[in-house]
Amino acid sequence: MVTERLRRQMDFIIEIDKLKTVLRRAYIYDSSRRENSAEHSWHTAMMALVLAEHATGNMDLNRVIKMMLIHDIAEIDSGDISIYHRKSDPGYASREHKGAERIFGLLPSDQARELLEIQAEFEAGVTTEAKYARSLDRLMPLMHNYITGGRRWREDGITYEQVYEVNKKIKEGSPELWDYAISIINECVAKGYLKPLISPTI
Amino acid sequence: MVTERLRRQMDFIIEIDKLKTVLRRAYIYDSSRRENSAEHSWHTAMMALVLAEHATGNMDLNRVIKMMLIHDIAEIDSGDISIYHRKSDPGYASREHKGAERIFGLLPSDQARELLEIQAEFEAGVTTEAKYARSLDRLMPLMHNYITGGRRWREDGITYEQVYEVNKKIKEGSPELWDYAISIINECVAKGYLKPLISPTI
Repeated sequence: MVTERLRRQMDFIIEIDKLKTVLRRAYIYDSSRRENSAEHSWHTAMMALVLAEHATGNMDLNRVIKMMLIHDIAEIDSGDISIYHRKSDPGYASREHKGAERIFGLLPSDQARELLEIQAEFEAGVTTEAKYARSLDRLMPLMHNYITGGRRWREDGITYEQVYEVNKKIKEGSPELWDYAISIINECVAKGYLKPLISPTI
Repeated sequence: MVTERLRRQMDFIIEIDKLKTVLRRAYIYDSSRRENSAEHSWHTAMMALVLAEHATGNMDLNRVIKMMLIHDIAEIDSGDISIYHRKSDPGYASREHKGAERIFGLLPSDQARELLEIQAEFEAGVTTEAKYARSLDRLMPLMHNYITGGRRWREDGITYEQVYEVNKKIKEGSPELWDYAISIINECVAKGYLKPLISPTI
């Protein structure tokens, strides 16, 4: 006998397969194609697992892993948006919120509530867990650009100043990861992957 | 200052991006392309999270989620193999094992050891956690075939008997999920997605 509860859980599992068709701006590291949000969610969950010791303060790692697994599911409805373009689309946060309510709402209500809470915690960015999770979600696109020679930055005309401004919040989640991010950003500038808005006079 | 330990952790994170280029036999649910092992790992981790209450016996869900996240990383070296073709490639398990040692070995030794242990537990399939994890890893391909009209089964000439034989082990991890799997298999037979080896005489 298959219960109604299990049927709802499986309907959710079927629905979220669509996250594999949501394309992000980033290219995968071999530069052959754009990344999708499902594989990005996996990669950031692995990052959470491996880098946990660098998080600021005590935290519940298992909650962060869940956060990374679900943090982009709402994009099935809202699509992905680059962190550099969020401000130019003021309706995005609301579409993302509605998406989360619809998709998590496929689950039995106790589970829907739990995942909506974790999602809201991530978006608010207040707890230690959310700060660490958001640091990982920033560090990852930096790595994609570092490995692919700054391809997406060049295509989108992103400058050093923008990258620095967006990524400095990594420090809130982890000072060590911010030190690492700075070393990557500096190397990208030195290699010409990333250009300052105003070139320094020689 | 970036420590040698953090550098090794990030080298691992960079290396495992390659899992996004390992293609599985399965097609994603919209049938537009084959699935890769990174997005599959994400999808099975989500399954572990949502279906936990159906596992046989008490278990550590967080360990199962880690298991699902890492269970296919060795495929970066060994490639993916269908469960229906494992027996025809006796060297596969050894290549997979060597792959796990090389890739997890990029990490600091304490972390490498932890992940190799989780991987070995999954492969052995003895603990409650591993039995549940292996049930999910079987149920997922069944779902891909169910949603895509049995496309991969037809292309590989897989019969009802083979599907039943391979999937009946789902019961060890979860009787409820095996009941669900049977309902899916029966529906696939009724719809003609899956054919018995010897058609019943009318």
